[in-house]
Amino acid sequence: MDILEKLNWRYATKQFDAQKKLSEAQLQKILEATNLSASSFGLQPFQIFVIEDLTTRSNLREAAWRQPQVTDASQVLVFAAQTNISEQHVKEFIERIAETRNMPKEALAEYEGMMKAFVTAQPQEALTQWAAKQAYIALGFLLVTCAIEGIDACPMEGFDKDKFDEILGLKEKNLTSVVMATIGTRSNEDQYQHLAKVRKSLNEIVTKI
Amino acid sequence: MDILEKLNWRYATKQFDAQKKLSEAQLQKILEATNLSASSFGLQPFQIFVIEDLTTRSNLREAAWRQPQVTDASQVLVFAAQTNISEQHVKEFIERIAETRNMPKEALAEYEGMMKAFVTAQPQEALTQWAAKQAYIALGFLLVTCAIEGIDACPMEGFDKDKFDEILGLKEKNLTSVVMATIGTRSNEDQYQHLAKVRKSLNEIVTKI
Repeated sequence: MDILEKLNWRYATKQFDAQKKLSEAQLQKILEATNLSASSFGLQPFQIFVIEDLTTRSNLREAAWRQPQVTDASQVLVFAAQTNISEQHVKEFIERIAETRNMPKEALAEYEGMMKAFVTAQPQEALTQWAAKQAYIALGFLLVTCAIEGIDACPMEGFDKDKFDEILGLKEKNLTSVVMATIGTRSNEDQYQHLAKVRKSLNEIVTKI
Repeated sequence: MDILEKLNWRYATKQFDAQKKLSEAQLQKILEATNLSASSFGLQPFQIFVIEDLTTRSNLREAAWRQPQVTDASQVLVFAAQTNISEQHVKEFIERIAETRNMPKEALAEYEGMMKAFVTAQPQEALTQWAAKQAYIALGFLLVTCAIEGIDACPMEGFDKDKFDEILGLKEKNLTSVVMATIGTRSNEDQYQHLAKVRKSLNEIVTKI
C-alpha cells in the first residue's frame, strides 16, 4: 500500500450513494482508529456523535446549508468539544492511566499537577478552543483511515453550530459541536471525483531551515 | 497492513535516537502526505517549517521547556497559521484551481464569492484560529503517515509561541506558530514505548443516535 496513492484517491465527497451503507466492521474500524488519535496530554477532551437516525439527520441538514451529504452518507460523525474542562477530568484521566498501566496514582502526581495547572490557568473559552483542536487531529486520523480502507468521507465545517448543539442536545452535556465528517461510498454521479487535486506545491508551503 | 496495528505501534516519542536521521525520501513522503491533508475550502491557510539547523533547534528547545525531542529528533516541523487571511488569498487559490483543472476562473465565481464572504465576515483573530485548526488536521495526516511508514513522531503543543515566532521570524511573514511535530527514530532507551496505550473506551467517547 502506498499512502500517497491512497491520499490521492480520497477527496471531499460531495455526493454519496445513499444505497450503500458501511458495514458494522468498517464503522468500528474507523472509530477505533479515530480513538487512537493523539491528543494534548492524552486527555481526549471531546466526544464523537455517530448519527444514523434519519429524522435527526434531516434536521442537521437544514442547519448545514442543506448539503446532501448529511442525509445521503452512510453515517454522520459530529465531533463535539468539552466546554467544562476541569481538574475533575484530569483526575479521571489519571485514574485511567493508573488502571491501564497498573501503577499507583501517586507515581503520576507530577504529571497530574502539570495538567491541573494547565486547565486552571486558562479561561474556559480558551480551553474549549484547545479541545476543538484536539478533535481536528482526530478528524485527520479519521480521514486518513477512511482513505486507507477505501471509504469515502467529507469533512465539513459549514454548519450552524448553535443549531447542531440544540438538535443533538449538546449544551446540557457540556459539549459544543466543532466539525463533522460524513462517511460512506461516493456516488458514480459525483463529478468532483474526476477533478485534479488542487494543492500548493511543497515549495510554496514548506520552508527548510 | 492493518491500520490499527500501525496506530498502536505509534506513541508520542519522548526520546529520539539522535544518531538516526530520516532519509530525504522519508522526509519527502511525510511532507507530500501532509500537503495532501484536507483543509476548509481547500485554502491551506498555514505554512510548515522544517528545521534541521542545530542552533535554531537549540533556541527553540529553550522555548519548549527544554524538551530533548527538539534537538534530538531528525527534524522539527513547526506548523504556522496565517495571520493576514484576506480576499487576496482567495484570489490566488482560485487561480491555482483554474490552472490545475484547466478551467476558466469565471466558472469559479460562485465559489470565490462564498470564500470571500467567509474571510471578510470574521475578525482576523477568528480566522487565525480557523487556520490553526486546518493545521491540526494536517498534523493528523502527518502522524498517521509516520505510523504507516514506521517513522516515530511526537506532536508538541507545549512551547512559548511568541518566542517561537521570534526565533523563526514568523511575525513579519504574517504567520504564527500553532503546533509542532518532531520526527525521527525512537531511542531504545525511551521507556514510554513499552507502556500500554491509554484511551477512553469507545463506549465512553462515542454516542450513537
